Amino acid sequence: MSLDKFKEECAIFAVHNHTEAANLTYLGLYAQQHRGQESSGIVSSDGVRHYAEIGLGRVSEIFNEDKISRLKGLSAIGHNRYSTQGETQIRNAQPFAIEYSHGPLALAHNGNLINASAVREKLEREGSIFRSTNDSEIVIHLIAKSREPRLKDRVIEALSQVEGAYSMTIMSQDELIIARDPNGFRPLSMGRLGVAYIFASETCAFDLIDAKFVREVEPGEVVVVNDEGLTSYFPFEKAPKKHCVFEFIYFARPDSLIFGSGVHHVRKAFGKRLAKELPVEADCVIPVPDSGVVAAQGYAEEAGIPFETGIIRNHYVGRTFIEPLQSIRHFGVKIKHNPIRELIEGKRVVLVDDSIVRGTTSRKLVKMVRDAGAKEVHMRISSPPTTHSCFYGIDTPARAELIAATYSVEDIKGFLGVESLAYLSMEGMMGALNESPDFCVACFDGCYPIPVPVAEGQMELLEKSLADANAPDDGKQTVIIK
Amino acid sequence: MSLDKFKEECAIFAVHNHTEAANLTYLGLYAQQHRGQESSGIVSSDGVRHYAEIGLGRVSEIFNEDKISRLKGLSAIGHNRYSTQGETQIRNAQPFAIEYSHGPLALAHNGNLINASAVREKLEREGSIFRSTNDSEIVIHLIAKSREPRLKDRVIEALSQVEGAYSMTIMSQDELIIARDPNGFRPLSMGRLGVAYIFASETCAFDLIDAKFVREVEPGEVVVVNDEGLTSYFPFEKAPKKHCVFEFIYFARPDSLIFGSGVHHVRKAFGKRLAKELPVEADCVIPVPDSGVVAAQGYAEEAGIPFETGIIRNHYVGRTFIEPLQSIRHFGVKIKHNPIRELIEGKRVVLVDDSIVRGTTSRKLVKMVRDAGAKEVHMRISSPPTTHSCFYGIDTPARAELIAATYSVEDIKGFLGVESLAYLSMEGMMGALNESPDFCVACFDGCYPIPVPVAEGQMELLEKSLADANAPDDGKQTVIIK
Amino acid sequence: MSLDKFKEECAIFAVHNHTEAANLTYLGLYAQQHRGQESSGIVSSDGVRHYAEIGLGRVSEIFNEDKISRLKGLSAIGHNRYSTQGETQIRNAQPFAIEYSHGPLALAHNGNLINASAVREKLEREGSIFRSTNDSEIVIHLIAKSREPRLKDRVIEALSQVEGAYSMTIMSQDELIIARDPNGFRPLSMGRLGVAYIFASETCAFDLIDAKFVREVEPGEVVVVNDEGLTSYFPFEKAPKKHCVFEFIYFARPDSLIFGSGVHHVRKAFGKRLAKELPVEADCVIPVPDSGVVAAQGYAEEAGIPFETGIIRNHYVGRTFIEPLQSIRHFGVKIKHNPIRELIEGKRVVLVDDSIVRGTTSRKLVKMVRDAGAKEVHMRISSPPTTHSCFYGIDTPARAELIAATYSVEDIKGFLGVESLAYLSMEGMMGALNESPDFCVACFDGCYPIPVPVAEGQMELLEKSLADANAPDDGKQTVIIK
Amino acid sequence: MSLDKFKEECAIFAVHNHTEAANLTYLGLYAQQHRGQESSGIVSSDGVRHYAEIGLGRVSEIFNEDKISRLKGLSAIGHNRYSTQGETQIRNAQPFAIEYSHGPLALAHNGNLINASAVREKLEREGSIFRSTNDSEIVIHLIAKSREPRLKDRVIEALSQVEGAYSMTIMSQDELIIARDPNGFRPLSMGRLGVAYIFASETCAFDLIDAKFVREVEPGEVVVVNDEGLTSYFPFEKAPKKHCVFEFIYFARPDSLIFGSGVHHVRKAFGKRLAKELPVEADCVIPVPDSGVVAAQGYAEEAGIPFETGIIRNHYVGRTFIEPLQSIRHFGVKIKHNPIRELIEGKRVVLVDDSIVRGTTSRKLVKMVRDAGAKEVHMRISSPPTTHSCFYGIDTPARAELIAATYSVEDIKGFLGVESLAYLSMEGMMGALNESPDFCVACFDGCYPIPVPVAEGQMELLEKSLADANAPDDGKQTVIIK
Repeated sequence: MSLDKFKEECAIFAVHNHTEAANLTYLGLYAQQHRGQESSGIVSSDGVRHYAEIGLGRVSEIFNEDKISRLKGLSAIGHNRYSTQGETQIRNAQPFAIEYSHGPLALAHNGNLINASAVREKLEREGSIFRSTNDSEIVIHLIAKSREPRLKDRVIEALSQVEGAYSMTIMSQDELIIARDPNGFRPLSMGRLGVAYIFASETCAFDLIDAKFVREVEPGEVVVVNDEGLTSYFPFEKAPKKHCVFEFIYFARPDSLIFGSGVHHVRKAFGKRLAKELPVEADCVIPVPDSGVVAAQGYAEEAGIPFETGIIRNHYVGRTFIEPLQSIRHFGVKIKHNPIRELIEGKRVVLVDDSIVRGTTSRKLVKMVRDAGAKEVHMRISSPPTTHSCFYGIDTPARAELIAATYSVEDIKGFLGVESLAYLSMEGMMGALNESPDFCVACFDGCYPIPVPVAEGQMELLEKSLADANAPDDGKQTVIIK
Repeated sequence: MSLDKFKEECAIFAVHNHTEAANLTYLGLYAQQHRGQESSGIVSSDGVRHYAEIGLGRVSEIFNEDKISRLKGLSAIGHNRYSTQGETQIRNAQPFAIEYSHGPLALAHNGNLINASAVREKLEREGSIFRSTNDSEIVIHLIAKSREPRLKDRVIEALSQVEGAYSMTIMSQDELIIARDPNGFRPLSMGRLGVAYIFASETCAFDLIDAKFVREVEPGEVVVVNDEGLTSYFPFEKAPKKHCVFEFIYFARPDSLIFGSGVHHVRKAFGKRLAKELPVEADCVIPVPDSGVVAAQGYAEEAGIPFETGIIRNHYVGRTFIEPLQSIRHFGVKIKHNPIRELIEGKRVVLVDDSIVRGTTSRKLVKMVRDAGAKEVHMRISSPPTTHSCFYGIDTPARAELIAATYSVEDIKGFLGVESLAYLSMEGMMGALNESPDFCVACFDGCYPIPVPVAEGQMELLEKSLADANAPDDGKQTVIIK
Repeated sequence: MSLDKFKEECAIFAVHNHTEAANLTYLGLYAQQHRGQESSGIVSSDGVRHYAEIGLGRVSEIFNEDKISRLKGLSAIGHNRYSTQGETQIRNAQPFAIEYSHGPLALAHNGNLINASAVREKLEREGSIFRSTNDSEIVIHLIAKSREPRLKDRVIEALSQVEGAYSMTIMSQDELIIARDPNGFRPLSMGRLGVAYIFASETCAFDLIDAKFVREVEPGEVVVVNDEGLTSYFPFEKAPKKHCVFEFIYFARPDSLIFGSGVHHVRKAFGKRLAKELPVEADCVIPVPDSGVVAAQGYAEEAGIPFETGIIRNHYVGRTFIEPLQSIRHFGVKIKHNPIRELIEGKRVVLVDDSIVRGTTSRKLVKMVRDAGAKEVHMRISSPPTTHSCFYGIDTPARAELIAATYSVEDIKGFLGVESLAYLSMEGMMGALNESPDFCVACFDGCYPIPVPVAEGQMELLEKSLADANAPDDGKQTVIIK
Repeated sequence: MSLDKFKEECAIFAVHNHTEAANLTYLGLYAQQHRGQESSGIVSSDGVRHYAEIGLGRVSEIFNEDKISRLKGLSAIGHNRYSTQGETQIRNAQPFAIEYSHGPLALAHNGNLINASAVREKLEREGSIFRSTNDSEIVIHLIAKSREPRLKDRVIEALSQVEGAYSMTIMSQDELIIARDPNGFRPLSMGRLGVAYIFASETCAFDLIDAKFVREVEPGEVVVVNDEGLTSYFPFEKAPKKHCVFEFIYFARPDSLIFGSGVHHVRKAFGKRLAKELPVEADCVIPVPDSGVVAAQGYAEEAGIPFETGIIRNHYVGRTFIEPLQSIRHFGVKIKHNPIRELIEGKRVVLVDDSIVRGTTSRKLVKMVRDAGAKEVHMRISSPPTTHSCFYGIDTPARAELIAATYSVEDIKGFLGVESLAYLSMEGMMGALNESPDFCVACFDGCYPIPVPVAEGQMELLEKSLADANAPDDGKQTVIIK
């Protein structure tokens, strides 16, 4: 998937009992920059006070030695955030840092709460005020409203009231609490660095700071770290594991270990399956960089077709870009991508990407490759058609905007203008995952592990827009929505 | 009073129903910059959404055309803030902008709430979370917790629970509510600009934007402005007027009209009274600029001694200043002040300032004037000795740090190193105010109009520090503290 | 003169042999901020290398501890610059720092060279390239082109080729050279701080850093300071002293000592003369702050009419200001000035300013005072009518824009809308200067001490524009221009 | 070559006669960001005036819509610059923009002049002053000193006096002149976009803006573009082509076409040759990203060993990075690189990079790969040992710091700690270049096409440092230095 069409909401990091807590958090966030580039923040604790530095932009732009030195104390939590345009406001940036009856409290959250609106309405009716439009803020209110004397129990009481996906770090004056939702939608790992405990969304953060990977935080687990050490609780009703398969397909860094497997390994297996399922006569396999690289390697290896980095990616893109008035063909994709004509001209190209969302970017890429002289373009997608929106932490557009929700593969092939188009089958994907039932694949089949409440009328609106689009019935079981 | 020893907390401004609401607010804050230079903010409303721009620094540094243009809508409220060092944090900057059950709400407050700690503790016990360390935030919580269906009644219910000084603007989607505490500690005026209603701490804000001064908002008055016009309420128990006399002595701009009088007029009358009470043989009257200028003019006029601007003030001071390692005499005062030797050398100088807080700056100024060749220095202060801290919105230091709380005038004279020292008498000050009982003079006599809750032990600490200092009993009636 | 209508080009500062050379220069520039607020720069020398920090804005905004610490060495020179809008470019900011055959060289210049265009053309014809549009750059080229083996002689050779006004500091690796033009147009003083030599445009810079004033650098003097001490040279043909009288009228700080007199003293004497020459029945004397304050004090003292600070000045103005779309009366002057109605209403006001340039600002100020209720407004100007442009370092507009070049005093009175208007007479001004012939008064009488080369046609253009304006002949001897 | 050890000095871009000249230049510089990331600048011409915007940092950080809109006119030239630390000063940033006898002139230069010091000394002796320490500035002086009436002839006269490498754009009010040195060291291409002429260091700049590649600017060619069209001159003595082979090995983007060949194609051919020359039994071929990727693909393809992206590169690195106090193993390389353990553990790894400079980074990378579990590490370098410094525009360190200048391959193998180390042979490299004699390979064999003047003593210093290092004689013909 090219051009950041899908966006992971965020990365979290936490450290307890290290003399360089803030600096390690800074590095841990930097290593996880790919999970969120719009804002970053660190809150540290010296046992009495909290110190916060939060800003818009990338980790390396926001923090400097001066700011790191102001983040005193042996504990810290951090957060990278992605947000859709127009919402990149500092008031939504995390960690949230507040004061309540038990002193300072900070919270960072990766994931999405399904019942956030309902809980927020209830809280507002009871007189709560909200600073942000961010769902994570409700958890802080719920903690503050709990009468439990111990932080751990307040957190458990709060989390018992929310549904959805959360990998979360909560820091008080002297305690660190780490929690992961019972389905384990989002990744979360535990490591150690000397006597310090480290937590991160992805293990690549451990690698940078030389921390040792210990294990994943379990789905439904609440970990309490304080000066007496680490204690683990499983206070919630057990639920089936539902790891986000999209982490393997696109989000996680290939060098990370999540959900018990190496990301690179699984992603490459997707590519190999794709080659087995849907072979094609071709001269070269070219990935859409960087999203399609690993799957394309698997495809090429399995198919015995040469792998070529036939599209170059420019990594120097800033946040804004000034487009000239005069129209430039494919300007949007060209800002990041440029084809190597000598590798493409006169060739039958297998173009590999991880997914197709709206289809517009893929269409431009195909056109660009064809303009570079490709004789044939065979698009191969290392995941099944994305037919449903995610409600657990992936920033997919509304269903009506997903091209595969409305159009058949044949239609999409026509839209993209390729000689052939093939997606990895659901069976192929599951096979690469060793037929494990532990994954959420709702974006492909609409079977949402936790029912998603939809406002009255909204569902009809969706159905209508789908109908308007004359979407052929894909025969799949549809969303369970109450 | 030189060198910003005392600091007024803030300025507020509000406008309803004007196509350039944000721009007028920007100008209104600029005109009131002297009341707070550490942070400024504007929140506007377009009838549905709120838009906020808040930053650290001065009005002219924070806002630009781009930001003003983002502040859409016909209503806006604004705030300038001063804060003691280390607390200049963006999270404490106002207006506060939140979301609650009735939509967006914004609040800006000038003053200080006496029972803030108690109310905050109660709110926190009930589960409220706080973003800032600012007392004003509790009012928002109280409004949000009210079950009253109308905003006006929620505000009244909230304000019924707080004690102290407040001039306040509150803005919802479509209403503006303006409230002033029953004692009327801080100034607050109402104006009109065409059909628009304007509110500001000081009338100098009206002058800049050509708004017409209508009247002061009355102590205890709650004004509601919406599309149906302006309605006035007096929901609180009537209380004696207790206007802050320090606004006349130091804070307000001389061209403002507050508490029914022109600031310049009253300030000059203080100087004249001072000259009558405490004449001295001298060659010239020199003010400490800018704080002592108007009183010095009154003194000179009354005494028939030439007024000379014998000390020049440099207005280009930025927020930080790099001091050289090598000690420079009087560096602290010299950064702002420089004497004109030819006016001072060999002269008997009456040096006029508005007040003395700790005495250290005055001492340096006296030394500077003496180094410039003054034969005699007679210090004259246009207010009585500042013996008590303010709890209603003036940032005075703890009582133990007030030189006049601990030392006699004779002792202070010795400390400053002057030939004579005289303060305006309480009687003189009251005379200049036409013997009006409508003023709070607690900083001079310790008679606090609203009893100030002091934490256990704190009072003893104060008494002890005063005793340690061997302060001679000043025979005044002391603080009523419960 | 209000609202920065006239602008002094700059301030210079230099220090030799002090461990805190850069920090002292920073303070010296800060004390002289009034002489130029658009850019500032410091170049220091550690005996081998030069270090430069130059930026746009005010001293306190440009420099911080980090930058000061990078300015190594025991010698430094600094410069504040004013420039007309559109020209505030970093490439024109001084000091100029270059490399040439003898190593690094830095130069800072206050003044204006009359023959800059001619010399520049000659240099360009010979192949010189220019980085700036600033006349000072030619002096560097002339120094670099000199074959003299000693820096002092190269500087003298260079300065021999230029005409006009210059107070200048030049720094090599290990020498400091200070030069002042033979007429001594601009001020320049020498001080000492321990063993270090200090030079500054105005003595107020010495006061801030505790340096001792030694003497003025003489007109035509070239001072060389190096490790062997200070040597003085008078290499140029002697010329009559022609100090800029406008320094006394407007530019210099009142606490400075220039041209052998205290600025405050002379400025006040102008006001006294004005009162004597042109008495008027009035209730109060009100200055246009800050430019008219000292003269107004003199006027009031002499006339026995009360001095009142009836117009308040807002010092918080930033570099840009966002004007609302809706027109605000007198917006331009209101941003800085606000009248105190209670001092003005029903009064006969003597409004004192130092000068009138185009007249438009004065007209707005008069209107503002009248709107505040003045019964009569009598404008008094503490200098003669400004009829000619300055070519020696004061940024006056072209002659055709000077209202007094085209209109009679009676006409100007009508334009301003005042009951009476009076300027200080040339005789009165000279009297206040003790009839000294040592002053340049070309802006009042057009007798330019150094003939000003005017491009063909330009003079005619001027005469035409004057004629078009039907300016009544003022009977004065006109400009000698070749 | 990893971690930016070698640095290309810069990229240039120029456009004539396009309504969006500045915007196209901005995009052209962005596409060439890899050639210089420390500063960027654009100068445009509207036929009369020049407009300049130059800043430190990356293209996307420096320019915004506001700045682009200020760059008026139909012509523009731009420049990206790399510079060694401590020298990243704005005064060295290009394009240089000056005024001289013929009006405004701007110049941007990619390359390095061999005789810059000598010419500069001569110019300084004649009185020229220099603003920068940049060699390119001398060309401007030489142009300004020429008596030729036409710009083209002045440029030719200037360039006749310099030796070394230059691809250069020069812009006057209405003309654009493009020049390339007779040896053609650095790349330079010509393109068209509608009627506009475009010039760029690399053709990837054409691709982004849809410009059509026309041809390379020839070595020794001077191209003049003005309103009459394009004229070509060959004023210099013909010289053998000496294209920089390092552009193919490392610098140029793989999607660019330079020196008549596609970069990707040649770079891959180097990898294939390397595999043929130096086969090894291994399990996978892993590139050092991004420098070794293409060669590794060639190696893998030829050797029939699987290509694996076993090291992940983090592209979010900012300009500074805060290292924690506690030492982190391989921190320097880890900031950019992280190995994928599952791909490396237990494997015999062929690690491919483009070159080795000092060897310290390679040593850390090898250690990192070994720590990730590699059973064997076989280092393969896709160029011969770098034994000599470049003087034609590549920022190589002094010869004594080049590990291959002092140590044998066997020694380096020991230093890196690898099972085997092999460089591409000179013959292999030439073979991949089709035995073309048109390349400068001085960094590998010390045969400098243009003799490099070395200051007295410096050569001995080098020889001594080499001798001290006990460098075994590599038997190669050494540098011809006079």
